[in-house]
Amino acid sequence: MAHRDDRAVTVTGIAGVLEAAVYAGDLDAAEDFYGTILGLERIVRAGNRHVFFRAGPTVVLVFNPDETARPAANPALPVPAHGATGPGHICFSVPDGVRLDALAARLERQGVAIEADFRWPNGARSVYVRDPAGNSVEFAEPRLWDPS
Amino acid sequence: MAHRDDRAVTVTGIAGVLEAAVYAGDLDAAEDFYGTILGLERIVRAGNRHVFFRAGPTVVLVFNPDETARPAANPALPVPAHGATGPGHICFSVPDGVRLDALAARLERQGVAIEADFRWPNGARSVYVRDPAGNSVEFAEPRLWDPS
Repeated sequence: MAHRDDRAVTVTGIAGVLEAAVYAGDLDAAEDFYGTILGLERIVRAGNRHVFFRAGPTVVLVFNPDETARPAANPALPVPAHGATGPGHICFSVPDGVRLDALAARLERQGVAIEADFRWPNGARSVYVRDPAGNSVEFAEPRLWDPS
Repeated sequence: MAHRDDRAVTVTGIAGVLEAAVYAGDLDAAEDFYGTILGLERIVRAGNRHVFFRAGPTVVLVFNPDETARPAANPALPVPAHGATGPGHICFSVPDGVRLDALAARLERQGVAIEADFRWPNGARSVYVRDPAGNSVEFAEPRLWDPS
């Protein structure tokens, strides 16, 4: 697993982002978008509270903020409460332009509008759509963040 | 870069999460937390709009939602508007228990209270704190998400 590669671990012990979260009131719609349309493997769905997906070495957490804002029900797993509202943001790595073209075409075939599609000053391309909850979902060539 | 490892790319072209976002009204406090306390390399700070950090192969975006909710100012970079309020969530990968112990000790030395520290049913450990904006920040052993 990439995040176990010790070469990238900071002096404080952090190897990278393991989980990114977005919030959605309608988890069925979120599951259709992240699972069916984006093709991410669903790890677990917990009723109306959350649905989680695997994305390479990372995990996407889709939470219903009405549920996660409540204190944890299981004292053995005292997960702190959280829950944001309004449009959040997440960006997925798409390794090259050919794959990004194919993904953009797939999104349009599935009825997902492309909100923006441009190149950053370093040449890396980003494509933006909205998930059903209105979160800004970006797909970018990872060289966007290469050290200059 | 890990996310360029083709073995992990989905059929839809996604290699993993590239950027995870949290929101904070006070970017100076966010910079102190993510940069100084967590030791993440700062990539860029843009006034009162955002500050970005590198975390291994991934990037942490801290946005001021008052600024990012406005339409993009530069027509060449039409970044869609977004901006969430309320406590969000992000989780960092800390590869092993020794590093997690050291990081928890560092956080406490820096005056950051540990809100929760427990093991999941599969044995992986998570430690939770709050960033200055109240976001729930987790540090977890990545085996938390190993396929069972």
